[in-house]
Amino acid sequence: MDMHTLTRELQVKNSSKIVMLVADGLGGLPMTPGGKTELETAKTPNLDALATRGVQGLSIPVKPGIAPGSGPGHLGLFGFDPLRYQIGRGALEATGIGFQMKPGDVAIRCNFCTIDNSGKITDRRAGRISSEESAPLAISLRQIKIPGVEIFVEPVKEHRFVVVFRGEGLSGNVKDTDPQAVGVLPLDPVAADAASQKTAQVAKEFLKQAKEILKSEKKANFHTMRGFAARPDLPSYEEVYGLRAAAIAVYPMYRGLASLVGMDIVGTATTLQEQVQVLKEKWNDYDFFFLHYKYTDSTGEDGNFDEKVKRTEELDSCLPAITALNPEVLIVTGDHSTPAYLKSHSWHPVPTLLVSDCCRPDPHTTFGETSAITGGLGQFEAQYLMLLALSNAGRMGKYGA
Amino acid sequence: MDMHTLTRELQVKNSSKIVMLVADGLGGLPMTPGGKTELETAKTPNLDALATRGVQGLSIPVKPGIAPGSGPGHLGLFGFDPLRYQIGRGALEATGIGFQMKPGDVAIRCNFCTIDNSGKITDRRAGRISSEESAPLAISLRQIKIPGVEIFVEPVKEHRFVVVFRGEGLSGNVKDTDPQAVGVLPLDPVAADAASQKTAQVAKEFLKQAKEILKSEKKANFHTMRGFAARPDLPSYEEVYGLRAAAIAVYPMYRGLASLVGMDIVGTATTLQEQVQVLKEKWNDYDFFFLHYKYTDSTGEDGNFDEKVKRTEELDSCLPAITALNPEVLIVTGDHSTPAYLKSHSWHPVPTLLVSDCCRPDPHTTFGETSAITGGLGQFEAQYLMLLALSNAGRMGKYGA
Repeated sequence: MDMHTLTRELQVKNSSKIVMLVADGLGGLPMTPGGKTELETAKTPNLDALATRGVQGLSIPVKPGIAPGSGPGHLGLFGFDPLRYQIGRGALEATGIGFQMKPGDVAIRCNFCTIDNSGKITDRRAGRISSEESAPLAISLRQIKIPGVEIFVEPVKEHRFVVVFRGEGLSGNVKDTDPQAVGVLPLDPVAADAASQKTAQVAKEFLKQAKEILKSEKKANFHTMRGFAARPDLPSYEEVYGLRAAAIAVYPMYRGLASLVGMDIVGTATTLQEQVQVLKEKWNDYDFFFLHYKYTDSTGEDGNFDEKVKRTEELDSCLPAITALNPEVLIVTGDHSTPAYLKSHSWHPVPTLLVSDCCRPDPHTTFGETSAITGGLGQFEAQYLMLLALSNAGRMGKYGA
Repeated sequence: MDMHTLTRELQVKNSSKIVMLVADGLGGLPMTPGGKTELETAKTPNLDALATRGVQGLSIPVKPGIAPGSGPGHLGLFGFDPLRYQIGRGALEATGIGFQMKPGDVAIRCNFCTIDNSGKITDRRAGRISSEESAPLAISLRQIKIPGVEIFVEPVKEHRFVVVFRGEGLSGNVKDTDPQAVGVLPLDPVAADAASQKTAQVAKEFLKQAKEILKSEKKANFHTMRGFAARPDLPSYEEVYGLRAAAIAVYPMYRGLASLVGMDIVGTATTLQEQVQVLKEKWNDYDFFFLHYKYTDSTGEDGNFDEKVKRTEELDSCLPAITALNPEVLIVTGDHSTPAYLKSHSWHPVPTLLVSDCCRPDPHTTFGETSAITGGLGQFEAQYLMLLALSNAGRMGKYGA
């Protein structure tokens, strides 16, 4: 059974506040046998104090052994089964630059490329053209008109941009035009099902007009299209949980993911301190706050153990300002592990801490991967964390009589 | 979602080696309150050294409280949901003697029996006739001809043999003819669904001809048929995991199970030492090795605690030769528990140890049921173990962007 069938039925309204602080890529690994992880190495007096009051455990983002991307990682934390709900590449890219997709929209990742006189691709990334050069070119494609379809073109970075089609009868099941090779012609956009025929036709017309517009360019004289994807159909926090939810995130990707589940994107913070300031300002307007902290992930991706330790300590230092607000439920977790040792997202379960006045604390007085193994939350799939949040906030009635 | 949908998409090829050492029936129980299990009693310095480097936990073969047979026990370890994929008895028996079933085949377990002049069974096992006597009789049944069906008859042991029907339109849902009693007539083979009508008719004709061929025998003058079963439709290791897999097993049953998931059966070892020798010889030819060790199960089934302890120590002694090969991932587990105390397969979760350079070790320095409770792998369903194996070997990309 979908857990949202339950939460829709059992949700209870009250004045409680829930804060979910997501330290991206929080979980780690020791660099040497017998060593400590990044989180265990970091001096985290505030997290440890919360561990003493709270209960910890290990969150499995998807299933044991599966390393998730940011999309499924966050969907799980938001209480959506990440194997059921999938966000297509184009939709994730559009979301990641803050584009607000509407139901029925189809988003496409595009790459500027170079073609020769015969139309064959000579460079799939147009010489990795700079953002400064490519953005005006992407914007020039906004002059493309196709009857019955509204078109959005948004620059991304370097050779990348996003196209979104809005209109009746569009579906996202269209094959990539990038042949993944040079010396060959780009492929035609081909519908993989009947419902996507119109999308394929619109894409073909878009490519035709784009070729004409770009023809005098030296490097970026054409583009490919891939990752066609409709907006995923995700029910909202308000509907499934009865929560007015706000996202306080610096990076567009996480703002976008939160907006897909109906959170309001609030503030324009660029540092964690500023994010906490936004939290304070918006405290009375929402029931649920998603705070996203990026740097535990990016430092892990860089393989920089010491910097990840520092960034974890920075995270720790922001906690007193959050606990001073006295949220009924405070959760500190991550969407996945990003061990500096692996320089990538990993499958390892994520240390997760929950504090409330009725959380049934475990005996741990520090927060980390090793203590979480024997924490009171045990090992659990991330998609159940929102149920724990709601119950600890007194926002879930009992199931059955 | 079927995990193989993911592994097909996310699999990555590299040069890593994965060894899965399955000690059949590994988990146990204390014989007296407060006592230790077989594994905890055994002196296992090598397993303990691996526990220090690795991470352990408890594998739940099917679901909590379910004691599996060898079939579902191994399917789980191989990453196949044992509640979804089922192997019928006949298919398991045919597989167990190394018969290569093809899709559409139906296999049947047959027992020679003794009937009296009125056709009633006087001995359901034909006096437990010796293999020497029964094998020629089974082979004599190969003269049976039935139009439109290819027939295979293979001796097994003592009174047992296997019949396989191959042809169009055969299904395996036919009821046993063994009445499970003496002094009564054997039953007719009855189809339990429309698709199995032809199989039932063929079986009836087979029994008629067999009766004629065997009529002058003193002991084995007829036979029963039971466990009718089509070949299970299992995707292969190569296809779902991208692994060239080899099985090094002494007993035909486990060789057969491995062959159903597309593993090559290599070597002719009869001892664990010889199995490890085969492992060395085949090291460069495969990515994944399944080593099966039977005696932790058979001694448990015998209720012989001390002998199971000894066999566990024998298992331990073979480990240095395996670790000397430096597999990227080494797993030691069992397909189920077989406590000497119960003299049978049981539902208890199975101590499972995984060693790799990125396994996130837990603090344990011994391997056993009690330490596994607080191991870093937690309690997990066996069907996820292959995901962990692949990820630890760097053979799984991330799920979603």
